[in-house]
Amino acid sequence: MKDTIRVFAPATVANVVCGFDILGFAVDAPGDEVIMRRKAEPGVTITKITGDEGRLPMDAAKNTVSASVQHYLKHIERTDIGVEIELHKKMPIGSGLGSSSASTVAGLFAINTMLDEPLTRDELVPFAMKGEELACGSGHADNVAPALLGGFVLIRSYEPLDLIKLPYPESLYCAIVFPDVDVPTRDARQMIRSKVLLKDAVIQWGNVAGLVSGLFMKDIDLIGRSMKDVLVEPVRSILIPDFYKLRETAMEAGAVSFGISGSGPSVFSFARDEETANRITSRIQKHLSERQIGSLTYVSPVNGEGPKVLG
Amino acid sequence: MKDTIRVFAPATVANVVCGFDILGFAVDAPGDEVIMRRKAEPGVTITKITGDEGRLPMDAAKNTVSASVQHYLKHIERTDIGVEIELHKKMPIGSGLGSSSASTVAGLFAINTMLDEPLTRDELVPFAMKGEELACGSGHADNVAPALLGGFVLIRSYEPLDLIKLPYPESLYCAIVFPDVDVPTRDARQMIRSKVLLKDAVIQWGNVAGLVSGLFMKDIDLIGRSMKDVLVEPVRSILIPDFYKLRETAMEAGAVSFGISGSGPSVFSFARDEETANRITSRIQKHLSERQIGSLTYVSPVNGEGPKVLG
Repeated sequence: MKDTIRVFAPATVANVVCGFDILGFAVDAPGDEVIMRRKAEPGVTITKITGDEGRLPMDAAKNTVSASVQHYLKHIERTDIGVEIELHKKMPIGSGLGSSSASTVAGLFAINTMLDEPLTRDELVPFAMKGEELACGSGHADNVAPALLGGFVLIRSYEPLDLIKLPYPESLYCAIVFPDVDVPTRDARQMIRSKVLLKDAVIQWGNVAGLVSGLFMKDIDLIGRSMKDVLVEPVRSILIPDFYKLRETAMEAGAVSFGISGSGPSVFSFARDEETANRITSRIQKHLSERQIGSLTYVSPVNGEGPKVLG
Repeated sequence: MKDTIRVFAPATVANVVCGFDILGFAVDAPGDEVIMRRKAEPGVTITKITGDEGRLPMDAAKNTVSASVQHYLKHIERTDIGVEIELHKKMPIGSGLGSSSASTVAGLFAINTMLDEPLTRDELVPFAMKGEELACGSGHADNVAPALLGGFVLIRSYEPLDLIKLPYPESLYCAIVFPDVDVPTRDARQMIRSKVLLKDAVIQWGNVAGLVSGLFMKDIDLIGRSMKDVLVEPVRSILIPDFYKLRETAMEAGAVSFGISGSGPSVFSFARDEETANRITSRIQKHLSERQIGSLTYVSPVNGEGPKVLG
């Protein structure tokens, strides 16, 4: 058993436009880091958090990282273990990029690696979902599953949990822009209507099926034309400044698709190469800055690996 | 240009349980036959219909086969052509197996082959959809697209029409039972609620995505566990005698899945081999006969070919 371990876990894009609550993928950047150290006395403590501007709790029972590690240790009947956790937020909170998920997954991956992997990555997902419940009020898997497993993950079903790893075109680049506006996940969920027209649902699952087919066929055109959301985006886009103008800007810059990441306010595009992805983020950033809205941008390939131990 | 041509077109299973209005596949049996003969004077006439118990119109403007051939000839600007059509119904009408679709597709494939294929099979789909509109009151593609293209077809979108051929496990067998009860397509459509719960729609598109993934991965277990319908089946199954008992019977006989074909009343199962498929149909038929309900059964692999010219 190692005494100290440092782990990176990736940010994730949930929903992937048409796949509300059932699809997500991981990116290489941004992501969070956790440093975990063995300590003599049993129990889990948070010793340090950086990059959160003081927004996250140091109380081990309330912090999603420590709480899910505690939950995990109880499950594997190793409450004799003691660890100290440092959480280094390397990505913005409340961005719609799976910030809490990246932290939680880093913590769970760290403890499981430290203990020589008593559980598989798949088996860690329910513990990470518990962490999401604490952080966001609902235990969804569309961030934590891709953060843990890497790549694209389909949550075919929640009861029972059924996760399917999907292939994807290796050349796909993701261009993310996080506009500096506040959209809490809880509020974004509450905006959505509880009833929808069946005819709209049919359009949506046609597109979901098209996106999944496009991923298997590595057909970027099909992926792009399937990434339409007639149900959730029309509502959630209200919270994002100039959403339709940002889409126009992205598409004119060569984007394959454009949509909201998770519950927003981050937006993302797929692009066929890194150069196009960079052009998309810089044009969107420019447009936002002309409206006096600051933003952070990230360009990265899809992350196929999930969390990893850093040297 | 050939003077006489005889064409077979396959029956189809639309919806495939979870993919309401967007998925369908073709089977080897049953199916319909059309014999088309060139005649000197321009125009399309129906000269003979067998196997329909007098239910189908002989009037060329009202019969879906002749009407869609007329529509096709007008489109390709060959109204100078004259053909006589014999329609041999080799499958039951109103069965939920794409009966009108099989006839229409046979007619369109016959004329297009006779004229040395001015249109591709994909291009024939809209003409067949027009035929469906005449026969069923709505121009859906989930029967005609697989009947024309063979195999599994995803209708990703209707506007514009976007058809994706999906792979499938070659070993998959389809077991169909048509109970002798009357369920008109129009009524079956009208039963369905126009609004659904978003949470049910999410379950549905998780399953649609799972089914499509299972087809690409040729993972019969995944195909089976994805074939659940929380939206349409609970309503349409009311019209099918002993539906849930029939499901139990099929699953006990080794079925991978069980559900309604199209708008019913036919039901179908997937099975891993022909023997199991035969066991499923014979047990369901036995159960129905104990309730004094007659039935027809069909066992066949998925038809990968679509319509074909007969020798």
